[in-house]
Amino acid sequence: VSVSSRVAMAKSKFEYVRDFEADDTCLAHCWVVVRLDGRNFHRFAEKHNFAKPNDSRALELMTQCAQTVMTQLEDIVMAYGQSDEYSFVFKRKSNWFRRRASKFMTNVASQFASSYVFYWKDYFKDQELLYPPAFDGRVVVYPSNQTLKDYLSWRQADCHINNLYNTVFWMLIQRSKLTPAQAQERLQGTLAADKNEILFSEYNINYNNEPPMYRKGTILIWKKIKEVISKEIKLPGETEEKKVEVTRTRTKPVALHCDIIGDAFWKEHPEILEDDS
Amino acid sequence: VSVSSRVAMAKSKFEYVRDFEADDTCLAHCWVVVRLDGRNFHRFAEKHNFAKPNDSRALELMTQCAQTVMTQLEDIVMAYGQSDEYSFVFKRKSNWFRRRASKFMTNVASQFASSYVFYWKDYFKDQELLYPPAFDGRVVVYPSNQTLKDYLSWRQADCHINNLYNTVFWMLIQRSKLTPAQAQERLQGTLAADKNEILFSEYNINYNNEPPMYRKGTILIWKKIKEVISKEIKLPGETEEKKVEVTRTRTKPVALHCDIIGDAFWKEHPEILEDDS
Amino acid sequence: VSVSSRVAMAKSKFEYVRDFEADDTCLAHCWVVVRLDGRNFHRFAEKHNFAKPNDSRALELMTQCAQTVMTQLEDIVMAYGQSDEYSFVFKRKSNWFRRRASKFMTNVASQFASSYVFYWKDYFKDQELLYPPAFDGRVVVYPSNQTLKDYLSWRQADCHINNLYNTVFWMLIQRSKLTPAQAQERLQGTLAADKNEILFSEYNINYNNEPPMYRKGTILIWKKIKEVISKEIKLPGETEEKKVEVTRTRTKPVALHCDIIGDAFWKEHPEILEDDS
Amino acid sequence: VSVSSRVAMAKSKFEYVRDFEADDTCLAHCWVVVRLDGRNFHRFAEKHNFAKPNDSRALELMTQCAQTVMTQLEDIVMAYGQSDEYSFVFKRKSNWFRRRASKFMTNVASQFASSYVFYWKDYFKDQELLYPPAFDGRVVVYPSNQTLKDYLSWRQADCHINNLYNTVFWMLIQRSKLTPAQAQERLQGTLAADKNEILFSEYNINYNNEPPMYRKGTILIWKKIKEVISKEIKLPGETEEKKVEVTRTRTKPVALHCDIIGDAFWKEHPEILEDDS
Repeated sequence: VSVSSRVAMAKSKFEYVRDFEADDTCLAHCWVVVRLDGRNFHRFAEKHNFAKPNDSRALELMTQCAQTVMTQLEDIVMAYGQSDEYSFVFKRKSNWFRRRASKFMTNVASQFASSYVFYWKDYFKDQELLYPPAFDGRVVVYPSNQTLKDYLSWRQADCHINNLYNTVFWMLIQRSKLTPAQAQERLQGTLAADKNEILFSEYNINYNNEPPMYRKGTILIWKKIKEVISKEIKLPGETEEKKVEVTRTRTKPVALHCDIIGDAFWKEHPEILEDDS
Repeated sequence: VSVSSRVAMAKSKFEYVRDFEADDTCLAHCWVVVRLDGRNFHRFAEKHNFAKPNDSRALELMTQCAQTVMTQLEDIVMAYGQSDEYSFVFKRKSNWFRRRASKFMTNVASQFASSYVFYWKDYFKDQELLYPPAFDGRVVVYPSNQTLKDYLSWRQADCHINNLYNTVFWMLIQRSKLTPAQAQERLQGTLAADKNEILFSEYNINYNNEPPMYRKGTILIWKKIKEVISKEIKLPGETEEKKVEVTRTRTKPVALHCDIIGDAFWKEHPEILEDDS
Repeated sequence: VSVSSRVAMAKSKFEYVRDFEADDTCLAHCWVVVRLDGRNFHRFAEKHNFAKPNDSRALELMTQCAQTVMTQLEDIVMAYGQSDEYSFVFKRKSNWFRRRASKFMTNVASQFASSYVFYWKDYFKDQELLYPPAFDGRVVVYPSNQTLKDYLSWRQADCHINNLYNTVFWMLIQRSKLTPAQAQERLQGTLAADKNEILFSEYNINYNNEPPMYRKGTILIWKKIKEVISKEIKLPGETEEKKVEVTRTRTKPVALHCDIIGDAFWKEHPEILEDDS
Repeated sequence: VSVSSRVAMAKSKFEYVRDFEADDTCLAHCWVVVRLDGRNFHRFAEKHNFAKPNDSRALELMTQCAQTVMTQLEDIVMAYGQSDEYSFVFKRKSNWFRRRASKFMTNVASQFASSYVFYWKDYFKDQELLYPPAFDGRVVVYPSNQTLKDYLSWRQADCHINNLYNTVFWMLIQRSKLTPAQAQERLQGTLAADKNEILFSEYNINYNNEPPMYRKGTILIWKKIKEVISKEIKLPGETEEKKVEVTRTRTKPVALHCDIIGDAFWKEHPEILEDDS
C-alpha cells in the first residue's frame, strides 16, 4: 500500500478525537452577550500616542469595528462600547451556529480585531499602526430583559465613573502639572460631587457639557437609513445608459451617545427587547 | 444628589450581573488545543484571486500570523496549520488566564485575525485586501499525549486527503479543461492510489514530489536561533559609539513541513510532550 | 519520621486534585428543575406485582417521597409527579449550595431513594421490598415563567397520553384477553378520540371519570395547614400536667391532581411564580 | 375537539423545553470519580447513637451500600470509603449513559441511599432507623493514572489525619473525662507524632495496632470468588432431584483495608489501572 493510501485509511482511525469537543451551547431563550476588551491596551495606547483622557480617533475606530461586526455577523441586536471594550447583544432566540458560545465569541473577536487593523488608517492618519493588537472576549448569558438592561447599565455606569475620574485626573496633570502620583493622591476618597466641583472651580469645566461620547459611551442600534445612490440604468426604448438617482432604504447600525440606564431609551426603542416568541 | 452621584451609586446595584458569567476552566493537566478556521474562506479566496489548488502566499501569511500568535501570547508549545485552519497547543500545565477557555480562544482568534490584515501586504504585493476576514475558533481539551498526537495526526491526514484530491481536481480543470462538475464526477469513488495514478499517467506528476508545505501542512515549534545583530556600543575609555556585531540566542517559532503521524517527529522533539510535573 | 507524620505531611501534596472539580453553577435568576426517573422500573414493577395500568400504592409512595424531599431539602417551590418520575422546581433565586447542579440533583435523588425504602411498608403492606431501587436524575434550567410552565405542561401532557394509552391497552388485555402484541396492534395509529371511544363503547368507561391522580398526575404545592395536636401542659398553679388541644399552623406540601396546562392553576396560585426580585 | 385530543396535540408544542437540557458529558478517556458525603451526618450519628470515634456497624453498612452500587451499576472499577463518604471510580473508557455526569452521580447517590435504608437492620440490630438520610455527591474527572492515584491518596491521608485526631480526642473525653472544648484545646497545634505519643503514654495505645478499617478506610476492588452453592438437580436416568454442591466462580467487590498511598497496592493490582485502549 502506498503512503497516500495508508494516510487516507488512517484518518478514520484518528477521528475519535472529535469526541473530546465539549458542547458549549448557550441556554435557549436567553440574551447572549459577547464582551471584548483590548489586551494590554494601556501599553498600546501609549505606544500609539493616544490623547488623554479620551482619544476620539480611537473611540471612533472601535465603533467602526463594532459596526462591521454587526453587519458581517448574524443576529446582533445592539452593541455598547466605551474605552477599549465593546459588548454585543445577540437576539434571544438566535440560533446562529446552534448557539455555541465558542462560535459567538471567536467570530466577534476576530472580526473586530481584523477590522481594527483594516480601518486603522481611516482614523489615525498621522500615526502608523506599530503592531497588531489582540482582544480578549467572554460570553455571558442573561435570562431576562431586566438582567440584560442591568448589564448594559453596569457598563454605562462604569463608563461614567471612569471618565469622570480620568477627566479630573488628566486636568490635574495637564493643567496643574501634578505628577500622576500626586493626582491620584488628590482624588483619593473623593465622591462624584467632589470631582464635579474640582472641574468646575479649578478648570471652569461643567462635566455635563463634556462630549456625550466620552460621558455615555456609544450605543449601536439598527436603523433604517435612506440612501441616495446613483445608478446607470438603461430605460426602455432608449439605447444608452443614463445616470439616475435612486433612493433605497437600508438597515444600518447607527451610533447614539445617550443614557441607557433610565427607562426612556427602552421606551423609545421597544423593538430591541421585543420578544419574537 | 447630582446625576453623577446617582450613576456612581447605581453601579454597585448593577454589579450582580457578574454572577451570570459561567466558569469555563479547562480541565487541569490536559493539553488545551485552540483551532481556528477561516470564516467563509471559499468566498474570500475567490475575491482575492487565490491560486488553486494552493496559494503559497496565503499559506505563508497564515504561518506568519500563527508565529505572531505564538510569540505574543503565552504557553503555546506548538502549532499546526493547513489550508485556512491553524491549531495551537498550549502546554499541559499552563495557568494562563487561569485556564479559562474563552480567554484562550478569543486571544488566539483576535491576535491571528489582526495579524492577517497587518501582514497581508508583505505576502500579497499585487493584491489589495478588500475586506477584513473573520475566523471561528474552538477549544478542545486532550487528557493524554496519545490523544493529542492523534488529534494532530487527524489534521495532517485531513491535509493529505484534501490536498491529494484538490491537486488532481485542479489538474483536470486547468490542464484537461474539465468543468468542476466533470472533475468531481471523474474523481467520485477513486481511492488515493487511483488519484496518484491519474496524476502520474496523465500529468507526469509524482505526488510525493509536490511541495511538502502543500502535502504535510506547517508545523511550528520553538527553536533556539542564533541572531547576528549590529548594535551601537560605547566601549569603556572611548568617546564615540561603535557599530558592533552581536550574536544572541533567541527562541522562535520555526516552520517545518514534515510527517507528524509517525513516531519519528516525536522522538526527534521529545521536549514538546515533556512533562513538567 | 513516623508513618503517621509522613501521611499527615503528604496530604497537602495531594490537595491539588481539588483543582479538577468543575464548577456547575446553575445560571442565576433561572428556575432550576430536577427530574428523577426510576431506573429499570419496568422490571421493578413486575417483580413487585404492581397493579396495571396504575398502582395507587406505588403512586402514593412516590408522592410521600416527594413530600419528604420538599420538607427535608431547601427552596423547592413545587413538584410534579406521574408514573415513576417526579420533577422538583427550585425557586428562581435559590442560593442553596451556591446553585451547584450536582448538589441539587444528588440531594434530591438520594433523599427520594432512601425515603422510597423507608416508607415502602406504609404503602405496600402485603408486598415485601425485594431490592433497593435507583433513580436517575438531571437538572434543567428554565429562564422564564413561560418556559417553566411549558416544561410542566409537557410532563402533564405526557402523563395524559401515556395514561390514556395504558388504560385502553390493559383493558384490551385484562377484559378482552388480548395478548400484549395484539393490544399494541389494535392501538397502532389510533388518535386520542379513538381511544376514548374504545373505552366507552367496549368497556363502558368514560375516561374523564377515571381517577384524577391517574389522568393528571400529582402536583405538590406548599399550603398552610391547621394542625390540632394534643400537648401535656402544666398550667400555673397546678401540680399535674394536663392534656390540652393546641392548634398550630404549619406549611406542608399538599397534593393536587388538577390541570396545570391551562392558566387557571397559575392564576389560583400566583405565589408560586411570584418574583422575589 | 375533545380535551384528550387537545392535550395530545399540545404535547408537541411543549417539547421545545427539552432544548434547555445542557450536555454534561465527562471528558473522554478520563477517570470519572463520583464522591458521596452523608448530608448532616453529624446529627444523624448522634440521633442514632453511633459509637465514637468509629462505629463499625455504620462503616460496614456504608461498605455494604458501596458493594451494592458496584454490583448494580456499570463500569465501576474500584471504590474507597471512610467515615461518611465513599468514592467510586468508573473505568476510563466507560460509555455508560454516554458519560453524562448527571447520570453517573444520581444513580450512585440514589442506589447508595436506598441501600442504606434497605440494609440498615442487618447492621443496626438494636437501633431503629429514625428517618431516611440523604447524601450529596459530585463528579470529578481525572485525566491520568497519577492524578487518580493522588486523588485516592488524598482521601486516605484525610482518613488518617481525621482518625488519629478523633482517636485521641475521644480518649481524652471518654477516659480522661475532658469536655469536648478541653479536648480540643489540648490537641490544638499538636503534630501527628504528639498525638501518637499521647495515645501511647496516657492510654497505652499503639495507634498502629488500631483496626485497619479505622486507620486506612475501605478499598473495594473486584475479585474472583469461588462460591459453593447447593443446587437441586435431576440427574439423567433418575426420577428425583438430588442436592448437589456446585462450585462456581463469581466476580465480587471485596473489601481491603490496606495502604493505597504507596506503590505496593498498584503493583499488586495492575489490572485496576490497565488501559483498555
